[in-house]
Amino acid sequence: MELNERQNKIIEIVKEGAPVTGEQIAERLNVTRATLRPDLAILTMAGFLDARPRVGYFYTGQTPFTLLSEQIQKMEVRNYQSLPVVAKESSSAYEAVCTMFLEDVGSLFVVNDQGLLSGVLSRKDLLRTAIGSQDMNHVPISVIMSRMPNITFCRSDDAVIDVAELLISREIDALPVVRTKGDGLEVIGRMTKTNITKAFVELARGAAE
Amino acid sequence: MELNERQNKIIEIVKEGAPVTGEQIAERLNVTRATLRPDLAILTMAGFLDARPRVGYFYTGQTPFTLLSEQIQKMEVRNYQSLPVVAKESSSAYEAVCTMFLEDVGSLFVVNDQGLLSGVLSRKDLLRTAIGSQDMNHVPISVIMSRMPNITFCRSDDAVIDVAELLISREIDALPVVRTKGDGLEVIGRMTKTNITKAFVELARGAAE
Repeated sequence: MELNERQNKIIEIVKEGAPVTGEQIAERLNVTRATLRPDLAILTMAGFLDARPRVGYFYTGQTPFTLLSEQIQKMEVRNYQSLPVVAKESSSAYEAVCTMFLEDVGSLFVVNDQGLLSGVLSRKDLLRTAIGSQDMNHVPISVIMSRMPNITFCRSDDAVIDVAELLISREIDALPVVRTKGDGLEVIGRMTKTNITKAFVELARGAAE
Repeated sequence: MELNERQNKIIEIVKEGAPVTGEQIAERLNVTRATLRPDLAILTMAGFLDARPRVGYFYTGQTPFTLLSEQIQKMEVRNYQSLPVVAKESSSAYEAVCTMFLEDVGSLFVVNDQGLLSGVLSRKDLLRTAIGSQDMNHVPISVIMSRMPNITFCRSDDAVIDVAELLISREIDALPVVRTKGDGLEVIGRMTKTNITKAFVELARGAAE
């Protein structure tokens, strides 16, 4: 939606001196109130201005892009997460690689005997072990994984965009989606850059429909 | 931007019988043309309807979300791509793992003696080799990489959203950004799910400004 010159001027006037009445705006622009009416209707409907009866117009601070931002903010993890793939601390690095291939995932979430999150294991951790001198069959993943509390996680009601920012800023590939259980965290999902990429595609597609 | 009931009705009427004049719409809705004027102005300005003088109104097929879609379509690979990390076909799997760690990337693009793209090597390819019986020091990457022409690539003027769709549909982590050189392709960049995630974050941030 593109605003015309007069509509942009109206926004400027309201920004400066809110509340401003329709009459005052008409005066400033040297036009009649009737001329302004469609412009004011458009600006109000589009959410740029807020009209309060007998008070005047206020600037909402909203731009055409707010709509997009709001749409992105509304995207919640619960609608984009994948099923988690977990492994036990005692599993060997070799078993972990096999699980990754079987399940076609790039990260495993490691759980302790109580079934609570204790670590995250990535392809990178396994590759590092593989080129080391240790035997993949005898290294337990608890030794090579990233360990709690140094694990970045999220919850299903978090915003997808916040997860995307964490993945970038912490330079990680996957986050466990968790919920509190007793003293620990139960893993209920997985958010990866693949999920973010899918969210991006869905945003564009939904938008195109 | 939310449309009111009458505005939605107007869109329906125009959708069905375009071109429709303002008079015809007024008749259908049992209101005066003066009453309709602000609604028609809003719908035209917002891009839902197209008004052609002496002909009538047409439906543009645009919804409030088209704006977002257009914004996403405009995002080009050139503005989001990373520098490529390349390796020679004769490099060993061991060397490739070291390069990945040094450069902190998850995929290497493999080039032939002419410096042209011949394959793509992923962490997954290397992990598969690592748990196999072969010696990582003696397996050349040309044996374990995905090979041309089975390589999905893109160009710097492609849309980011198209790359995102390829990454998802082909289940790959990275695409080389290429340009034609002689009979082959020269690698000039790298597009991964990390780049898409960054694009998504930028879209949301830019939108929030």
